[in-house]
Amino acid sequence: MVDDFERMWADLAPVGRSAASGGYFRQPFLSAERELSAWFAEQAAARGLTLQSDAYGNQVAWWDPPAGSAGSSTDEVAPDGASKGPHRRSGAGRSGAGRSGALLTGSHLDSVLDGGAYDGPLGVVSALAAIDLMRERGVVPTRRVGVSVFVEEEGSRFGLACLGSRLAAGATTWESARELADRDGVRLGDVMAGDAVSGGSSSLLEGVTTFVELHVEQGRALVDRNAAIGVASEIWPHGRYRFDFTGTANHAGTTAMQDRRDPMLTYAMTALAANKQARTASAGGADLHRATFGRVDVAPNGTNAVPSRVTGWLDARCATDASLAELVAAIERQGHQRAERDGTALTVTAESVSGPVGFDGDLARAVAADHAGGDWPIVPTQAGHDAGILSTAGIPTAMLFVRNPTGVSHSPDESASMPDCLVGVSALADTLSRLAGGAG
Amino acid sequence: MVDDFERMWADLAPVGRSAASGGYFRQPFLSAERELSAWFAEQAAARGLTLQSDAYGNQVAWWDPPAGSAGSSTDEVAPDGASKGPHRRSGAGRSGAGRSGALLTGSHLDSVLDGGAYDGPLGVVSALAAIDLMRERGVVPTRRVGVSVFVEEEGSRFGLACLGSRLAAGATTWESARELADRDGVRLGDVMAGDAVSGGSSSLLEGVTTFVELHVEQGRALVDRNAAIGVASEIWPHGRYRFDFTGTANHAGTTAMQDRRDPMLTYAMTALAANKQARTASAGGADLHRATFGRVDVAPNGTNAVPSRVTGWLDARCATDASLAELVAAIERQGHQRAERDGTALTVTAESVSGPVGFDGDLARAVAADHAGGDWPIVPTQAGHDAGILSTAGIPTAMLFVRNPTGVSHSPDESASMPDCLVGVSALADTLSRLAGGAG
Repeated sequence: MVDDFERMWADLAPVGRSAASGGYFRQPFLSAERELSAWFAEQAAARGLTLQSDAYGNQVAWWDPPAGSAGSSTDEVAPDGASKGPHRRSGAGRSGAGRSGALLTGSHLDSVLDGGAYDGPLGVVSALAAIDLMRERGVVPTRRVGVSVFVEEEGSRFGLACLGSRLAAGATTWESARELADRDGVRLGDVMAGDAVSGGSSSLLEGVTTFVELHVEQGRALVDRNAAIGVASEIWPHGRYRFDFTGTANHAGTTAMQDRRDPMLTYAMTALAANKQARTASAGGADLHRATFGRVDVAPNGTNAVPSRVTGWLDARCATDASLAELVAAIERQGHQRAERDGTALTVTAESVSGPVGFDGDLARAVAADHAGGDWPIVPTQAGHDAGILSTAGIPTAMLFVRNPTGVSHSPDESASMPDCLVGVSALADTLSRLAGGAG
Repeated sequence: MVDDFERMWADLAPVGRSAASGGYFRQPFLSAERELSAWFAEQAAARGLTLQSDAYGNQVAWWDPPAGSAGSSTDEVAPDGASKGPHRRSGAGRSGAGRSGALLTGSHLDSVLDGGAYDGPLGVVSALAAIDLMRERGVVPTRRVGVSVFVEEEGSRFGLACLGSRLAAGATTWESARELADRDGVRLGDVMAGDAVSGGSSSLLEGVTTFVELHVEQGRALVDRNAAIGVASEIWPHGRYRFDFTGTANHAGTTAMQDRRDPMLTYAMTALAANKQARTASAGGADLHRATFGRVDVAPNGTNAVPSRVTGWLDARCATDASLAELVAAIERQGHQRAERDGTALTVTAESVSGPVGFDGDLARAVAADHAGGDWPIVPTQAGHDAGILSTAGIPTAMLFVRNPTGVSHSPDESASMPDCLVGVSALADTLSRLAGGAG
């Protein structure tokens, strides 16, 4: 298994990597990410897993139980495209560690712009290596076990995070998603084959009754607890908000300072206000607020022109829906006040807002309990995941985190040690065995 | 002449125009600007003017005096590429309204990103129309008269304003310019044919002893003076400075506010400080300072990532060299202070700094005096121009401004009325006739 993991990790290392920064550019439906998708299909074939894809580019590689065993019937999974109307899911429910229906595990292969190697791929590679390990251990599944790869988890190209899992779960309709456009104006409807499927639906999640996602931790909760593995309790509510600041383009040299309507100033003050608001709200050690302007687009973006428009995207996250709404409202209010002073205008659009996700408590406890060395800690996260989408859609879901020594993520510096990664594979194999294992 | 002007203006109207904004994208050596360059060659041919181009893409259309008349010898203009070593200019000097050597007029055809219709093209179209008008009036030139088009005046692609005139005048060497790169990393050396010329020099300015540039005003000095035409006294010192703010990329959701090293904050504070510094320094009605951050580049520029780097470009202008240096130093100092607080780093690079340009006073007075309706006002400008480069290179130079009702420039809203434009053509024809005219 160690060799399998290391070989797969070496396969992925060069794909979409920037020689300049050492970071990854694996945006959906572009060459690096498509290469990873093809690589995944090869890995499935090499293991005798059955590959299922949907029209959105999501993939599942299925490991079927032996014919005649419990749960071996495959006809509960409808062939792709046969599902009509609202998304149906047989056997789904808050059944915790229920062992009927299919068990899915996996993550994503896309990255943020200039991202790290672990966010996404660690969950996919670990899932494949966990199946290898289970087979080495002689585990025979009592239910179907699938390894999933959901597209555009980061939202780095089309702006909507967890796009693939949202579409697969019916949380976002194809009719609205097809109009999403990337930075070059390319519509999602023109790169995804969703239109080819009647009603645009996906049958990948039909019959799936449990989902487990392994992911590199994106903070230092496990470092603080001196644990290599943790289990997620919840995902904070979070949202992306587009702030469009408009003013009047003019000559940067000849326009007197008092004659300007410069949206860069309004943007700058709002970005500072967002940071201050989140820091102030988190003061006293509570640390329950995040507000970030990490993406900006300026028109015309010329050195010698006062801009006509500055667009900034606010990423905001809080422990509760109410505090998130309050935080965003406070930032918006300060933006409007400054806009009045600058003679500019501000329009705020919520591009996506996700409520809190409380993962299945019974399942989390069942996954975390009774390991050599003690229970795995159960910790919250501020990062969105496909697991949150599937959980909200009614599929009992658990997340495993692998320790990240610095906590850095969405950066070339993101990391996890090889020993911790291998502990992660073993932990995932244990978890899958608990949920779907039988003796060989 | 009215018809000529309006026809030429209509020719140019659609070229490189954005249907979305109504603004122009005429970046050097890209399709729209190349179309304008070809258009200029056609206009020259249609008028029987002799087109001369240099290896940098600069063009001059020459109107030669009749054979045998004073100044009709063309052999003082060396064929392109024949000039070796340092740039030579015979007859150049502070001769004011001297009438030996060649007289050049013209401007540029490139635009800022999303710019207006007038900045540049008005000077070229007016120069061609002025020749038409002089011919209608029976003026015969006593010296060579050339209409010039200098490339990349705005610096919107390669970052160095007045690039074509700098190269032609020897103010910038080809060895340094060839390494300039556009936003996509394309090197100037790969788009300009400069390498093809021995030593990379230009002979376009050989023998030129006077330059006159007509330009739309980029402020409201003429509106305030109720004048359609003005003459430039000076150009303020100005510069472009690249501010590189570096921090640490990280996850926007999981990274606690106090654990960040976010260069967006340092940038935002510095942009606000620049504005405040210029406003404060200009307070009390002096209005002698400008500071603008109009261009920003962020890495990785993702919504859910704290940036690793934010680069902002400062455009700064002041009435004197000393006050410009003081202004930039004050902004830089505040940026460094904030960087210390944010745990980020700031590096400032002066990409170009131009000292003050005092245009030839004798020439300005000679051009401005004794018109029907009184003398034209003589006013300063904060905008850089090719005229500033040629003046600094020792060629007596004058600028005519055409009134701009709103003062807006570097914007789709830039404008001049058609009557004022036609007054401009007539004024330029009068000026050229004073400097080069004889009776037919």
